[in-house]
Amino acid sequence: MNSKQTGRRTFLKGVAGAAATLPFVSSGATAAPADLTINDAIAIILKNIPKPPSRDTVDTVKSGDPTQKVTGIATTFLATYDVIRQAADLGANFVITHEPTFYNHRDETDWLRSDAVYTAKKRLLDEKGIVVWRFHDYWHAARPDGILTGVTKKLGWQPQTGKENIFTIPPTTLRDLALSVKQKFGSPSVRFVGNPSQSCRTIGLSPGAYGGGPQITLLSREPIDVLVCGEIAEWETSEYVRDAVAEGKSKGLIVVGHVPSEEPGMEWLVEWLKPKLPGVKITHVPAGSPFSYV
Amino acid sequence: MNSKQTGRRTFLKGVAGAAATLPFVSSGATAAPADLTINDAIAIILKNIPKPPSRDTVDTVKSGDPTQKVTGIATTFLATYDVIRQAADLGANFVITHEPTFYNHRDETDWLRSDAVYTAKKRLLDEKGIVVWRFHDYWHAARPDGILTGVTKKLGWQPQTGKENIFTIPPTTLRDLALSVKQKFGSPSVRFVGNPSQSCRTIGLSPGAYGGGPQITLLSREPIDVLVCGEIAEWETSEYVRDAVAEGKSKGLIVVGHVPSEEPGMEWLVEWLKPKLPGVKITHVPAGSPFSYV
Repeated sequence: MNSKQTGRRTFLKGVAGAAATLPFVSSGATAAPADLTINDAIAIILKNIPKPPSRDTVDTVKSGDPTQKVTGIATTFLATYDVIRQAADLGANFVITHEPTFYNHRDETDWLRSDAVYTAKKRLLDEKGIVVWRFHDYWHAARPDGILTGVTKKLGWQPQTGKENIFTIPPTTLRDLALSVKQKFGSPSVRFVGNPSQSCRTIGLSPGAYGGGPQITLLSREPIDVLVCGEIAEWETSEYVRDAVAEGKSKGLIVVGHVPSEEPGMEWLVEWLKPKLPGVKITHVPAGSPFSYV
Repeated sequence: MNSKQTGRRTFLKGVAGAAATLPFVSSGATAAPADLTINDAIAIILKNIPKPPSRDTVDTVKSGDPTQKVTGIATTFLATYDVIRQAADLGANFVITHEPTFYNHRDETDWLRSDAVYTAKKRLLDEKGIVVWRFHDYWHAARPDGILTGVTKKLGWQPQTGKENIFTIPPTTLRDLALSVKQKFGSPSVRFVGNPSQSCRTIGLSPGAYGGGPQITLLSREPIDVLVCGEIAEWETSEYVRDAVAEGKSKGLIVVGHVPSEEPGMEWLVEWLKPKLPGVKITHVPAGSPFSYV
């Protein structure tokens, strides 16, 4: 058992006890619990996720002291410099981010130690006393998947029975579906592969960057006309669909962008959290798309 | 030593001998060598690359029998179904591709064995007797880098002395540079991160999907205003540049797309190859971008 694992197990044990005796203030359901720490809040969240603690999870505290009392929570797709500043302006000291803070999946920072962009971000976090905690693996492990739930609500689609990521909609063309998805996500631009006039009725949905293997397997094994996804590697899923179309198969791919495809899941987190943390001010601070297009 | 390594070493040894005694026909420099096999052609190419043979390279034959005589060569960014069909129409039985044929970096096919898209592509390759060989690691290892050379020619930029991927250009804005790059690459759409009116004079160029770490390190360590790259992971380089801009730093990122950013390097391969394989018909067959945009 390594020290990281010990830390997480000890933490969870301590927190379970704390959650049972939380010192909520007596002024009603909308008042903030006076002594709720960020560690307490994390424990309450994890109690509601069926996935057991994992030593390999990326869902760790990335910055700040989680023993401090919660003054407010900001949920976001990614704790950008601007999101952190906005959270501080809102009086929130706890940022829950879905994606990494320091530009790599494991938030490793040794390679960034002398980097000016990293250093300035770390300084902002320290000055504002902000705790950033990642909620990625566990939010996807919520039942139903937290990201998928928020995204599905945003799209207004009804999943097929027993399949949370497969949907049947009134038939439309691939191009019109891309336009509709773009408008619902508020994306500045959406890419697609396939015949623009191809009929789409059955849709697979895969927010984020799920990987070429799983995306292609979904397209291959499920009887879907089109896969709507967040991000791809451009030598994988897009090339599979390009070949499928060249072979005369009726398949399409819509690539929404990573941010628009998952942000609704972090917006939904606000509603999911509110009854679990009554009295805590919880706000969604959108990261938004970083891209302009020409 | 595993069988793969044995195979490559044996092959290279055999080929070095063959290259020394190639049976060129006697009717002049433009005539095809009558008995030149695809293995011979590969050996001649590799003789011109300074990188030693690697057991871990992805530059292997992906399909077909390379002991057959070359009838013609098609170079391409990626051996799509359409590219293979066009190569066959041109009478070429040897396709040199930069990127994978079967939708994953190592061209593993076990997971695709019952997949209809893969099966149809394999059938086309077999019916047409096409050999596909990947020229990725070794082409990047050419001195200068084969892809970078072709891309630089297309852009018309002059590298700084001693730095093949850093360029100084007359000052322009980030948006205008994105437009210029889009036009030169013939891209349908180009994304950028940063202030559209930011001045750009020093450019870093990183075709393909070089990875977040190397891309960020280039932005961090070199005094460049903007990085022009092929593909990114959307939680890495784009977020680094977004933070840099929020911190008041003058940095930009232009994301061209993987295909447009490397295709000129496979177009340049035709000119590089012609004097080495006199008399062989060599044609660039562009894969082109698979994307439409709304």
